[in-house]
Amino acid sequence: MKVLLVGASGTIGKAIIAELGQQHEIITAGKSSGQHNVDLTSVQSVENLFNQVGKVDAIIAAAGNVHWGSFKDMTADEFKIGINEKLLGQVNLTLVGQKFLNEGGSITLTSGSLSHDPHRGGASFTTVNSSVDGFIRGVSVELEGGRRINSVSPNVLEESWHLYGLGVPGTTPVPAALVAKAYRKSVEGHQTGQTYQVW
Amino acid sequence: MKVLLVGASGTIGKAIIAELGQQHEIITAGKSSGQHNVDLTSVQSVENLFNQVGKVDAIIAAAGNVHWGSFKDMTADEFKIGINEKLLGQVNLTLVGQKFLNEGGSITLTSGSLSHDPHRGGASFTTVNSSVDGFIRGVSVELEGGRRINSVSPNVLEESWHLYGLGVPGTTPVPAALVAKAYRKSVEGHQTGQTYQVW
Repeated sequence: MKVLLVGASGTIGKAIIAELGQQHEIITAGKSSGQHNVDLTSVQSVENLFNQVGKVDAIIAAAGNVHWGSFKDMTADEFKIGINEKLLGQVNLTLVGQKFLNEGGSITLTSGSLSHDPHRGGASFTTVNSSVDGFIRGVSVELEGGRRINSVSPNVLEESWHLYGLGVPGTTPVPAALVAKAYRKSVEGHQTGQTYQVW
Repeated sequence: MKVLLVGASGTIGKAIIAELGQQHEIITAGKSSGQHNVDLTSVQSVENLFNQVGKVDAIIAAAGNVHWGSFKDMTADEFKIGINEKLLGQVNLTLVGQKFLNEGGSITLTSGSLSHDPHRGGASFTTVNSSVDGFIRGVSVELEGGRRINSVSPNVLEESWHLYGLGVPGTTPVPAALVAKAYRKSVEGHQTGQTYQVW
């Protein structure tokens, strides 16, 4: 399959390449790295990406910043970072990408376990991750021609535990290689509207 | 209790007043009706509202438009309407309102059953409603002093069935008076981080 992977340089992106790269043609994209540069917050930039890449069999997104910080002191602008980057970025990729997705093809987005495992500092994460899982449920009943959409909801990664572990006490991190298998299930399987929880 | 109700002129707002108005002091607000005018998409407008109203024991939001339409033809701007109005509007109300909420007080937001019952045309609803339910989960672990936050997730209302029923075939609508009881549970009860599903 021809697979477009946005966020290829991240920890999850690299694990997806390791998992899928042998059997599939992976086209990499990212904000400032990969074969193609794309700013998911810009519809025009996403359109430019697909005009270069053309039709694909799978679209994967593993990108988008979210603000971590106390809700008591959070500003509306800080809250919006994750909405604009992780939610609306993946929405833009889907809105444009649906027109470049071959029949039977899949879109796989990324949410995260904080959707149902709230911790202080993570209110924006909990909101954004829940919204991404909602988005794929909503879109799943609209796509036609066997096209599918799912999300992968990873826990904190073992590889990132030194950065985020203190904020999520009692959490058991998961290896990125295990998370990558969920993307394979979405790309090669036949389910739609599903959130694959790796937690 | 002193209860601030934003969206008081809507079908749900009126039912909340009927349910709670006897026992509580309800202060009404809305975009263009009620005792106070407020634009939830503007932090400044929300701050003006609370500077006029002062401290309260409960904040209820039952407001916010969302775009209904085929995802195939939806624009990013159409998708954003619900994000800006229903999600970020309620986020703004919470960000500012937490500073004006008495100890033990509650914030009750509104989501909706489309979060888990997707229908064609409703992708933005499914996303936004899921995000609101996520938001209250996230904020619930951050509030202190016994302050609480919940959401009410109503099904399509009997009163609005003639407007929306065709879009959600097979759905059994609920009366607004039943939905209003869920707001009472949030305001007078002691739970937090809960979504009261009226479906």
